[in-house]
Amino acid sequence: MLYFEDLTPGRVFELGSVSPTADEIVEFATRFDPQPFHTDPQAARASHFGGLIASGWHTCAMFMRLLVDGMVADAASMGSPGMDEVRWLAPVRPDDVLTGTFVIVDAVPSRSKPDRGVIRSECRMTNQDGVTVLTMKGIGMYGRRPA
Amino acid sequence: MLYFEDLTPGRVFELGSVSPTADEIVEFATRFDPQPFHTDPQAARASHFGGLIASGWHTCAMFMRLLVDGMVADAASMGSPGMDEVRWLAPVRPDDVLTGTFVIVDAVPSRSKPDRGVIRSECRMTNQDGVTVLTMKGIGMYGRRPA
Repeated sequence: MLYFEDLTPGRVFELGSVSPTADEIVEFATRFDPQPFHTDPQAARASHFGGLIASGWHTCAMFMRLLVDGMVADAASMGSPGMDEVRWLAPVRPDDVLTGTFVIVDAVPSRSKPDRGVIRSECRMTNQDGVTVLTMKGIGMYGRRPA
Repeated sequence: MLYFEDLTPGRVFELGSVSPTADEIVEFATRFDPQPFHTDPQAARASHFGGLIASGWHTCAMFMRLLVDGMVADAASMGSPGMDEVRWLAPVRPDDVLTGTFVIVDAVPSRSKPDRGVIRSECRMTNQDGVTVLTMKGIGMYGRRPA
């Protein structure tokens, strides 16, 4: 189990990869972000994107799944108060292979709650061509190691 | 159709409401954010959250759906480069009734692309008790009205 004390600045977690199918892109967007360039391959081709692209929220959600499988599931996660500077830097297209990285940049014990601390991170997802498609400045709360 | 020129600072869009069921919360999180307080009602009860709560990404995605239905579907949306300061301020629990508001705070024509402009917004979602559960500083690109 990873506790706050283990999540030291500079530590890097390589999170592995995920690859969304066209069907998954359309399914997510139909439910949560039904804009034609996310849900309709023909309309997407006619748009300035030139083809179907994933909802940015789908991209964030795929990153989160990589982060849970690659780190959070083994950590004393206590949730998150939010994220800063979510950036969708390049389109995510069907069958792209997206690889996640999580780098810890700051770790501060909570002043009000001695059982936890706040971890700040740089989150990144790149595609199979090495193009960064997503960056986020993450904030997460993690339990401190029991005495 | 709403164009960039129609999206003037101060304009408010009331986006209506959405209410996630426990099954929907578990389904989303099982796929994208499988932490026990999002996927397992019993484990969630034993956690510091005291019961099942929605993934923050699910909350963002539900907001996006309200935004598309309430504004974006009728606008010349050209996608988004990202969001600033996503804040999950209070837990979202099963059957909460979440109401969205979108307020335009800034509108700047693109310098490099004369066919579009950038809209900055304050996004908010409140629950049935008037508690704000989500705020975001949004960034969106919208097409300019054809000459």
